[in-house]
Amino acid sequence: MKIIVKKFGGSSVKNTDRIKNVARRVVETKRKGYHVVVVVSALGDTTDDLITLSKEITSSPPDREMDMLLSTGEQVSVALLAMAIHELGYKAMSFTGAQVGIVTDSAHTRARIKSISTKRFIEALRQDNIVIVAGFQGKTEDQEITTLGRGGSDLTAVAIACTLKAAACEIYTDVDGVYTTDPRIVKEARKIQKISYDEMLELASLGAQVMQGRSIEVAKKYGIPIVVRSSLNKNPGTIICKEAKDMEEVVVSGVAVAKNEVKVTLFGVPDKPGIAAKLFKDLAEKNINVDVIIQNKTKTNRTDISFTVYQDEFKRTQSLIKKIVKDVKAKGVTIDENIAKVSVVGVGMRSHPGVAATMFGALAKQKINIDMIATSEIKISCVIKKDKATKAMQVLHRAFGLGGKSSKAKKKKK
Amino acid sequence: MKIIVKKFGGSSVKNTDRIKNVARRVVETKRKGYHVVVVVSALGDTTDDLITLSKEITSSPPDREMDMLLSTGEQVSVALLAMAIHELGYKAMSFTGAQVGIVTDSAHTRARIKSISTKRFIEALRQDNIVIVAGFQGKTEDQEITTLGRGGSDLTAVAIACTLKAAACEIYTDVDGVYTTDPRIVKEARKIQKISYDEMLELASLGAQVMQGRSIEVAKKYGIPIVVRSSLNKNPGTIICKEAKDMEEVVVSGVAVAKNEVKVTLFGVPDKPGIAAKLFKDLAEKNINVDVIIQNKTKTNRTDISFTVYQDEFKRTQSLIKKIVKDVKAKGVTIDENIAKVSVVGVGMRSHPGVAATMFGALAKQKINIDMIATSEIKISCVIKKDKATKAMQVLHRAFGLGGKSSKAKKKKK
Repeated sequence: MKIIVKKFGGSSVKNTDRIKNVARRVVETKRKGYHVVVVVSALGDTTDDLITLSKEITSSPPDREMDMLLSTGEQVSVALLAMAIHELGYKAMSFTGAQVGIVTDSAHTRARIKSISTKRFIEALRQDNIVIVAGFQGKTEDQEITTLGRGGSDLTAVAIACTLKAAACEIYTDVDGVYTTDPRIVKEARKIQKISYDEMLELASLGAQVMQGRSIEVAKKYGIPIVVRSSLNKNPGTIICKEAKDMEEVVVSGVAVAKNEVKVTLFGVPDKPGIAAKLFKDLAEKNINVDVIIQNKTKTNRTDISFTVYQDEFKRTQSLIKKIVKDVKAKGVTIDENIAKVSVVGVGMRSHPGVAATMFGALAKQKINIDMIATSEIKISCVIKKDKATKAMQVLHRAFGLGGKSSKAKKKKK
Repeated sequence: MKIIVKKFGGSSVKNTDRIKNVARRVVETKRKGYHVVVVVSALGDTTDDLITLSKEITSSPPDREMDMLLSTGEQVSVALLAMAIHELGYKAMSFTGAQVGIVTDSAHTRARIKSISTKRFIEALRQDNIVIVAGFQGKTEDQEITTLGRGGSDLTAVAIACTLKAAACEIYTDVDGVYTTDPRIVKEARKIQKISYDEMLELASLGAQVMQGRSIEVAKKYGIPIVVRSSLNKNPGTIICKEAKDMEEVVVSGVAVAKNEVKVTLFGVPDKPGIAAKLFKDLAEKNINVDVIIQNKTKTNRTDISFTVYQDEFKRTQSLIKKIVKDVKAKGVTIDENIAKVSVVGVGMRSHPGVAATMFGALAKQKINIDMIATSEIKISCVIKKDKATKAMQVLHRAFGLGGKSSKAKKKKK
């Protein structure tokens, strides 16, 4: 069975005209002889509207009931899309996540997929149906309805593609693909034709909001290629796949920015083993994710520790700060909300030294001060002042030659 | 387990304020020591809005997909009501029809309930939850989502009450109960305190739009009392229950009117056995319901046959008329859309003759001509001109003394 999985996000099905458009796209693929599974998100603002309704009733809805409420959004979409495909003269069947056998754990509002049954898919596809599945949702073994949290519909599509051993998983969205950087900020931003799972994972976690990391991780594990493309035109989009030899020639694939972090610095902390452990244990217990961590020994026996947390978890961090300062016996604490993190990503970095030098040099030339540096095998991140972020992205994009016809950076020594 | 089942219709949950009101009503009953199961319809206009969306896509949606679409309406209601009950500090769990084990046949958009599993109800009630169930829906044995058609939420409530052997099934609506006739037409209309299943069945089928007949039939079969009352005040409402001795003193319980029928007369039909059978077989094959049937022998060997059909099935009837006229060898056909059917209903009729005479006399006094008459054990219906319907209801209501403090009609000879 040659199967293609297609996922259409909320903006691709925001009204009935868009749904009819999706139906035509789906039928085209069916005509080419593929079996087609379609995963759909809720119509446009449906999810927000439902959240508004719940807020009129309570500020703290039980997670179980929130899932019951929100899962209706995708159910409406799948039914309407099935109707639109019927109208074009093709067979289609819609399914909720529960119906089609997407089994999750019981962590309501952020459930993880445990297994997907292939039975109903195979039955419906064999009967020549286009199979339409509600994204973002599943059920527990006790028949409780669950939702998968942010990026859940992408995850549904990728997980189904992996389970059915699909030829590809196509993610349709309102942009043409993955760009070298945010085109709203840097005009020369260019669409990337092919990118590796690892690079995409770094870009995803760094704030390129095309896809969530968890979907890419699953696709990587099963080796299913993902295509990110627009539902509004037929441009070829970006392929996210296994690292290929030709990719390594590209040193830097993209530049990303994240402006949603806050920097906390504890200074004058006694430089003794176990102090950092204590600090991050306090944060972990409150489920606070820490991003960049820097430790700087300044005086004898004393050290400064800086770390960044995400803005939406900062409130919870603040309520902990007093306890942390006391626990680690720090002399003081500063908080800086005026930061941004710019990053360059590329698998080619492994074999092409000089990327860090190019990056720091380009920033220095613009008198942009670097506050913190964090690196991985295929990524270099610099924390800078927030008001310098746009300028930094522009110069880095240029410094690595990402805007030109070729995206190869000049090979410099690291 | 002392269980009360409560059903709230769309107008009772048309916005979040109304939902909070319902939550308070439900909690009151819980506080009195009952286990409570609540059945809810979709919010206000939700169902209509969903139908509009589907019409933008296709004029002939597959029934299966229509059920997938419409069943979301009730799912939104149950989640929001569960949240509102939590907000009041009580435990509540919402369920879709499928989740709670309401199994139906596979007749999408008009499914019949085959069985209801008690397992999840008992589990959830034992854990002290108020159980909230989406009305109007179920699933087939193949996990397909179905809806129950018109009056489906009432049916859900009554069927659950019967399965759980509830103490009562309360149907909350936007009127105070069942009236002796339509209060918008007859000012003196009075709320009935108690009415038998059979009388209510006649009134339901005669156009008193409080409850659908199928729910009453189920309640009658299992002997579960139904209480119809308002969700907006605490008035006691109407009890629909087994016929009690004191009911027989009431000769006529109510007057109903139906204006949605069309009269078809075939005249000069050969008066031979099998002719009527042929006629009504043609209609039955097209799924057309016939209400009143009158056959009048006029000449030797020839007879006139009149029958009424419902307006929404009249179009389909018209396309059959030619074939029917030919099949029954009629000399001609007339169609009258200008008719109304007024009916008086009461179990007391069985033992109190004179009702027909009173009825015909009252109509005659107002010079209202009777076109057709149909009777059952507890009902007399007269087909009259549509523009006389209001007047007819008023005089009949008065003639049977329904407006006074006592609803006993004067006992006359039939």
